This record gives sequence, C-alpha cells and structure tokens, in this order.
Amino acid sequence: MNKCYVPKNNFDTVQLAHGSGGKLTLELLNDLIFPLLNNQSINSRHDGATVPRFKNNPVITTDSYVIDPLFFPNSNIGELAINGTANDLAVCGAKPRYFSLGLIIEEGLKISLLTTIIESIGKTLTRVDGQIITGDTKVVERGQADGIFINTTGIGELQTAHPINSQNLTPGDEIIVDGPVGDHGIAVLSRRENLGFDSQIISDTRSLWPEVETLLNSSIKVHCLRDLTRGGLATNLLELIQTKKTVGACMDSWKIPVKEEVKAACEILGIDPLYVACEGRMVIIVPAGQGDQTVEVLNARQDSPGACKIGRITDDDPGNLTIKEPLGTTRFLRLKSGEQLPRIC
Amino acid sequence: MNKCYVPKNNFDTVQLAHGSGGKLTLELLNDLIFPLLNNQSINSRHDGATVPRFKNNPVITTDSYVIDPLFFPNSNIGELAINGTANDLAVCGAKPRYFSLGLIIEEGLKISLLTTIIESIGKTLTRVDGQIITGDTKVVERGQADGIFINTTGIGELQTAHPINSQNLTPGDEIIVDGPVGDHGIAVLSRRENLGFDSQIISDTRSLWPEVETLLNSSIKVHCLRDLTRGGLATNLLELIQTKKTVGACMDSWKIPVKEEVKAACEILGIDPLYVACEGRMVIIVPAGQGDQTVEVLNARQDSPGACKIGRITDDDPGNLTIKEPLGTTRFLRLKSGEQLPRIC
Repeated sequence: MNKCYVPKNNFDTVQLAHGSGGKLTLELLNDLIFPLLNNQSINSRHDGATVPRFKNNPVITTDSYVIDPLFFPNSNIGELAINGTANDLAVCGAKPRYFSLGLIIEEGLKISLLTTIIESIGKTLTRVDGQIITGDTKVVERGQADGIFINTTGIGELQTAHPINSQNLTPGDEIIVDGPVGDHGIAVLSRRENLGFDSQIISDTRSLWPEVETLLNSSIKVHCLRDLTRGGLATNLLELIQTKKTVGACMDSWKIPVKEEVKAACEILGIDPLYVACEGRMVIIVPAGQGDQTVEVLNARQDSPGACKIGRITDDDPGNLTIKEPLGTTRFLRLKSGEQLPRIC
Repeated sequence: MNKCYVPKNNFDTVQLAHGSGGKLTLELLNDLIFPLLNNQSINSRHDGATVPRFKNNPVITTDSYVIDPLFFPNSNIGELAINGTANDLAVCGAKPRYFSLGLIIEEGLKISLLTTIIESIGKTLTRVDGQIITGDTKVVERGQADGIFINTTGIGELQTAHPINSQNLTPGDEIIVDGPVGDHGIAVLSRRENLGFDSQIISDTRSLWPEVETLLNSSIKVHCLRDLTRGGLATNLLELIQTKKTVGACMDSWKIPVKEEVKAACEILGIDPLYVACEGRMVIIVPAGQGDQTVEVLNARQDSPGACKIGRITDDDPGNLTIKEPLGTTRFLRLKSGEQLPRIC
C-alpha cells in the first residue's frame, strides 16, 4: 500500500489539471489511486473492463454519495460508497462482486484527505470481497462540488432462485429489523452541526451481505429485504407497500429498537428516528410464523446488532403504514414532503 | 412521453426535498424521470435491477459528466452522458446494453431544463438501443454542484473473440481516425466563453457503436480502438503507446483531418486541435496493409464524417508520439501537464 503519495510537483491539493486527462491525471491514477485499489482490471487501463460471465443473473445498482461532512463518527464517504452500494445488491439477494468508481473532486481538496478516502475504499472492498474494475476522475473548480462526490455502481450475482422484492408481500408476513435504527443519520448530523452527540453516537455503516447470506442459507423463505437508508425505516417500508399497492403494514412502536442516546438526540432536534437514515440496517419480511426463527438466525451471528420482530403486513389498509403505541392508540406514518436531513449519504 | 411535468406543488425549480427520498422524490421519479425513460426494470422500483445473463462476456465502464455549460451547440449533457459511456463500451468491442443513471442536481435547477436533459437521455438511449435499468437522484444545496452532474455506468456485451486493446499494438500497424477532430471541445468552449464560433462549430457527439459493428463484421483485424475524448487525439494515442510500452507512433500532420473553422478557432485561442476533445471520433489501429480497406469500409457508411489514414505504430522510439510536418521536420507530441480545457465532458 502506498500511504505516502507526494505529487512530484509538491502540490498538496488537487488541481484542475488532475482532471485534464493529461500528465497530472496519469500521475494521480498511477501513484495514488491504482496502488490503493490494486487489481488486474483497473491496471489494464482500458476504457472498460471485461469481466467473466456469471453463472447466475447479474444485478446492477448505482448510488451517488454527496454526504456532508466527508468524515463522520466511525467512518467516511469512501467506506460509505462501497457499503451503501454493496447493500443495495445484498437486499436484492445478490452477492456484491464488481464496482465502478466515479470521482468528482473539487479543486483544492487536500491530497491527504483524498488518500484517506481512497484507502477506506480499498479496505472496505477487501471486507465485502469486491473489486473496483473501472473508474473515472473529474475535477471541477473551487465551489463547484463540496470536496468530493463519489458514484459507485455495483454488479452482483443473484444467489436466490425466487425473486426477493415487494411483489412477494403477503398479508400476515412478519417484519423484522436487524438492529437499532437512526444511528447513522444522527451521527452525521451531530458532526455537521457540531452538536456534540458524536462522542456517543457513531455511524452504523457496514456490509449487510453476510447477514443476507446467512438468511438465504437457512430454511427461511425471505419475501423481501430493504436497507434503511435515505428516509429511514418509515419511508422505506412505505415505499415497499406502495409499490405492491394491495397491502398495508403495521408496527408496534415499543418493539422498534432505537438506542437511548439516539432517542434523546432526536427529541432535542425534534425529528422522528423512524425517518432517520441508517447505513447498516435492513428490514426483513418473511412469511407468517417465520419471524421468530429469522430473529434467532440473525442473532446467532456474533456481529448481530440485535434483530427484533417489529410488525406485520396487513390487508386492511392498502398503502398505509400504521404504528401502534403502548396504550393502544394507532397513528399513520406518512411520507414526508419536506427535507428533514439533507446530504446524509 | 410526458413533456409537461408540472410539480403538483407548482415549484418550477428542483428543491432539496426532491432528493430526500420522501414524497417529492417519488413525485419527481414517477411523474418526470420514469415516464421519459420507460422500461420494466426501472419501473420495478427495486434497489437494484436483475438482468438476463449474457451469452458473451460483460464489459463495464463508468463516466461522470460535469460539462459546463449544460447545453452546447447541437447537444446537451444528457445526450453526452449516454453517447460518451456507450462509446467507451464500443471501443472495447462491446455492444452497449444497459446503463445506470446517477443524477446529482443543484437545488434551484429549473424543472424545464431537467426535463429537456432527461428527454435527451431517453431519445439517445433509443438511438443506441440501450436501457437505463437503475438510477439514483441526489440534490445538493445551491452552490454545491453546477446545475447537474451526471454519472452513467454502462454494461455492454463483448462482440469479439480476440481482445481489442493496446496490448495488440505492433510496429507497422496503421492508424486511422474516423473523422475531423476537435469540434466538440471548441463548440463547448465557444458557448461557455461566448466566443461566437458556435454558429459554425457544433459538437460531434454521437454513438460510435454502429461504426465499430461495421468494422467487426468486416474482414479487418482490429487491433485497437480509442475514442478521442478528454485530451484529444494526441493524449489518447500517447496513453495507448505508453500502456503498451514497447512501441511508439508517428503521424503525418497533413493527413489529420481538422475542419478549417476549428483550425481558425484554435489559432485564435492558442490551443492545439490535436489536444482538443471529441465526443464522436475514434482512432482505429489495424495491421500493416489493412489501413486503406479500413478507410473504405468506414467511408462506405452513409453517416461517415470522413475517415483518414493518419499514421503508423513504430518500434524506433517506444512511448513517444511524433508528428511529421510537410517540409520533413518532425516534432514530439507530449502529455500536457496543465489543464487546457476544463469541464469539456
């Protein structure tokens, strides 16, 4: 690993010419980026990468990461850009395999920050057993991007015979969440606004594929999976049932895991943790009667953040998500029309 | 086609909440973006798209488009984002099939401009016979992106039994360019700086796959292809021979096609057209003796912009690109270390 790239010309920040396609671009790629992402495809330096054919169907997903700040408690935009895209593949039942990497860098970004971000990408790729096979680097003038924006497109290999998606949702299905929700959003917001919660609350970013693989190797028939990023638990569940159209969902508020410190921060900020993004949490929806087994299988994993059964799919109120409070009252959770937490991923 | 999306709330510009993952995001996707890119994968609204297995190897490429201005003579960032990525596949010998679409939109972008850009993407996809299968939309605050940045990742299917890349370069190989160079860069620069050339000079953006397919269906053994984007003819040829390491290249200056108006603009601007980006031109490198046939095959196409044989691969000066002038002098073309034309794609 090349931890100490020093541009030959002693620039300590990214210059416009690093994106010109000329000498400085090649230097940035050859001396900084490629050594940290070492693999054969990227070293062949062609316009595209040819990969082996898959045995199973390919699954493709894309995400741009515009998180502010670039570094947040426990992680940074580089790790997020791999985990986030890997997780979109995982919840389709696909093992992450290949990634593309599109960097849009603001002129003036410190080379040392860029190095740390690319290093994080390299380490996270090793953890998710994936490879960057093709990439692109653009530099825009000062003020025209906020440090760095990263796009990763992920290509995975489907590992299930039956599709895993919202079309499988059936009244009676049980809803499980694999750990406490809201940590990532609050950690980022706290660092961005200097709120001081970030000593206790750290981002939950991680790869969900190992959990998904465990579920697929069990006897549980997984109906649907969804990672709880932008919009959090409530928005993502709403999107699932509104795509299916014929079902609703109901959650029991006291069963939804939210850490005490996240609850406290949300109360101070006046936001609902059920709408706060996670980057390493998902809901798992399984047929009636398989919820307890799902929780057991997940919590048998050493790295389990604590899975819980939190609700069920219903047929009495299609398209609506309701939440029961301990005293028996019920309220609707709606899609928010404003922006609660911008630039959280 | 839905040409007249009017946000239900009468916003005529993109709001931060359009990127929140909530109600406005769904409205933007369902009412503006999806209708213009209509296809089944994107309508399934899953985190990723499952595609059929290919018969041949997949080829993958990615590019971010940060061009300034968004609209330039004859085209816009939307068309460019499809053609550019399709061309990176084409020069690998792969037929473009699937695309991902990552939008990073600046708060305040006019909905009407966004609509025109997405429409261009839709029309260009039809021309290249490709599909957007998965996407992502982010909105960043005013001043944090310059209107819109677009990332497209392309997945193509390899159509050649032998690899087409710089490793095939052999002394004696002939170099062909498929049309006049430098139009795109000068057209964009002219519009950006209000230079007034843009009445005559328009972008050359187009899909190169039809030409590549013609070549692959002929008896010509194509050694290498490269589209002449960032850095233009000189930089791209230099990158090819420097990747191969053991060969050089030599061009005859009087054979390189450059339109008179592009030459004139370059003289006024003090830039070398051989370093100016094209978005619909490529070099084709073929074995000794096959150059004339290559020119014939390309120029037999009705849409040919005028292919010419311009030079050859040599073994006498590895890694170096030389250009012969009509009076017999020879000079080196080097990689530029500064940024000549930023944000040209």
